[in-house]
Amino acid sequence: MQLNEALARIRPADADATAQANARQARLTKPAGSLGTLEELGARLAGLAGTCPPPVPVRPVVAVFAGDHGVHAQDVTPWPQEVTAQMVANFAAGGAVVNAFARQCGVTVTVVDVGVAAPYPPAPGIRDRRVARGTRDLYTGPAMTRDEATAAVEVGLAVADELVDAGHDALLTGDMGIANTTPAAALIGAFTGSPAEVVTGRGTGVDDLMLAHKESVVAGALARHQPDPADPIGVLAAVGGLEHAALAGFILGGAARRVPVVLDGVIACAAALAAVAIAPAAVDALVAGHRSVEPGASVALKYLGLTPLLDLGLRLGEGTGAVLAMPIVAGAARVLHEVATFGDAGVSTKDGT
Amino acid sequence: MQLNEALARIRPADADATAQANARQARLTKPAGSLGTLEELGARLAGLAGTCPPPVPVRPVVAVFAGDHGVHAQDVTPWPQEVTAQMVANFAAGGAVVNAFARQCGVTVTVVDVGVAAPYPPAPGIRDRRVARGTRDLYTGPAMTRDEATAAVEVGLAVADELVDAGHDALLTGDMGIANTTPAAALIGAFTGSPAEVVTGRGTGVDDLMLAHKESVVAGALARHQPDPADPIGVLAAVGGLEHAALAGFILGGAARRVPVVLDGVIACAAALAAVAIAPAAVDALVAGHRSVEPGASVALKYLGLTPLLDLGLRLGEGTGAVLAMPIVAGAARVLHEVATFGDAGVSTKDGT
Repeated sequence: MQLNEALARIRPADADATAQANARQARLTKPAGSLGTLEELGARLAGLAGTCPPPVPVRPVVAVFAGDHGVHAQDVTPWPQEVTAQMVANFAAGGAVVNAFARQCGVTVTVVDVGVAAPYPPAPGIRDRRVARGTRDLYTGPAMTRDEATAAVEVGLAVADELVDAGHDALLTGDMGIANTTPAAALIGAFTGSPAEVVTGRGTGVDDLMLAHKESVVAGALARHQPDPADPIGVLAAVGGLEHAALAGFILGGAARRVPVVLDGVIACAAALAAVAIAPAAVDALVAGHRSVEPGASVALKYLGLTPLLDLGLRLGEGTGAVLAMPIVAGAARVLHEVATFGDAGVSTKDGT
Repeated sequence: MQLNEALARIRPADADATAQANARQARLTKPAGSLGTLEELGARLAGLAGTCPPPVPVRPVVAVFAGDHGVHAQDVTPWPQEVTAQMVANFAAGGAVVNAFARQCGVTVTVVDVGVAAPYPPAPGIRDRRVARGTRDLYTGPAMTRDEATAAVEVGLAVADELVDAGHDALLTGDMGIANTTPAAALIGAFTGSPAEVVTGRGTGVDDLMLAHKESVVAGALARHQPDPADPIGVLAAVGGLEHAALAGFILGGAARRVPVVLDGVIACAAALAAVAIAPAAVDALVAGHRSVEPGASVALKYLGLTPLLDLGLRLGEGTGAVLAMPIVAGAARVLHEVATFGDAGVSTKDGT
């Protein structure tokens, strides 16, 4: 699927299916509204699928997009850059947290190298789709060319398409990239207009001094590039990362194929802003898996109008929060399939009617 | 297992195992602290089991304790009392929300009739352990005799014991009982000293007028009985419900067998206050599955020092919130088993050390 084709296929949620789901919720054997946010989630899944009840996702997959970042040179993280490649190998070996959570929650893991700088041993389960060996330093110039940003978006789109073709029915976002919370903060600042000090966080755990420095790097990049949110590819090229761009394409692919895309943390939220800037109706495919500790994630979710399912103090990335949210997403769909109505179960309703 | 034997077996968490879990978290391939509340949860599970890594629960079960309430006569709910029995049949037929969530999350459902008033067709999966055909009206007199309250606690204890003997390794609390948020509010008021207007909520959805009336019923019951929190069986007998008492015993049974007990909503929270009043160390077996919309649940969780895993606006009961939390509980244990250490995975640590 080409990007233009994907964009042509992305349409808003089906209002009829959404309304049918809401009407059905009221007939099920439970007090009206007693499932809280899961009732709205069920209705959104119905609207996305264009049918009620919506399909219950039974073959979810988390795609961990990995890339490196030239802005690592600005000392925005205490972690060495080679950890990106080392973690790619760890994912492939099944030894990372996202692998453990995925086994628990019945989610398949796939890894997509869209721009890792260092070498790692090839392994099954790693898709080599490298656009470049990492980005350039967004503090001193554009992180990518427009062509590189577009190519990364197309990688994500193609991966989404391949995974849906292979039978996966929910796409979960994952990411790995040492220093990638810095471009995420810059993207969120660019798309929402929020200042650097509001959208920049501690990432994997920087101290106060490094946080202040990281904020100044984000502020400096935004001041240098003056990214225009009406030109999302331009924003991605100026201050983004290869995995952020790929995730934007992955989201667009999920929206085009009308399968739910469960967002992980701040990297996914930044990518979602780019995707929705490219195709506003893509927001109807999005489910916010969790609220990351990173402040930029909350800024982005508010801007997107999404309520996160989990709030567990996670700040790991990899897709961990999206994977943990998956049983809840599937549960919201399953309610609309499997729960008896008052009539069918012979249960009296409120006020004895 | 008799109650005295259970109480003798309930001991605080093993501090060595807790410390081992915390030390292990720091060696796993993730930034320190990046799993937020799940790191503390993993350490609590280790402390409860007395070993690190703690067992990963693979056969969780939710026990739905059902009972009726004499206080229904005070018009504290718009739902007719026979819905309790009708929902017991619905659980047995697999048609309720808790059944759908349980299928999603790999949890077994069992139903325990500890005091349902109306008849229902017998069915496999319903344990008939009826202590009485519902309680008496707590607004006009004691809900139960001390003997009835003790018998209900013993039912819950026995069910916990049976389920662990049958191989279940996590116990989830469920409940069904039209009007049961009224005794729950009274119990939470009695054990925490909070006034009726703070602990009383809308339950399955009462309007403003009925809420004010429900508060006055709770306040009146507390004023009449002056329940003494130092006499937990007396509190349960005065203002509790049969399912609340049974759940207190179920919690004590789980604590005695050193398996995690995942709490659902306000009914479970009220029962947990009773259990912890009986055996303070039982708190170390408790995991708060979610934050119910009912205000009394938050009062109780704060009093118990527990942080809920989910906050989804649920107010259904049945065990639904506990079931949805189960994959997260298992995930927290699984991390300590399956995630590679920095050394084993060849991943560099922060600051390149």
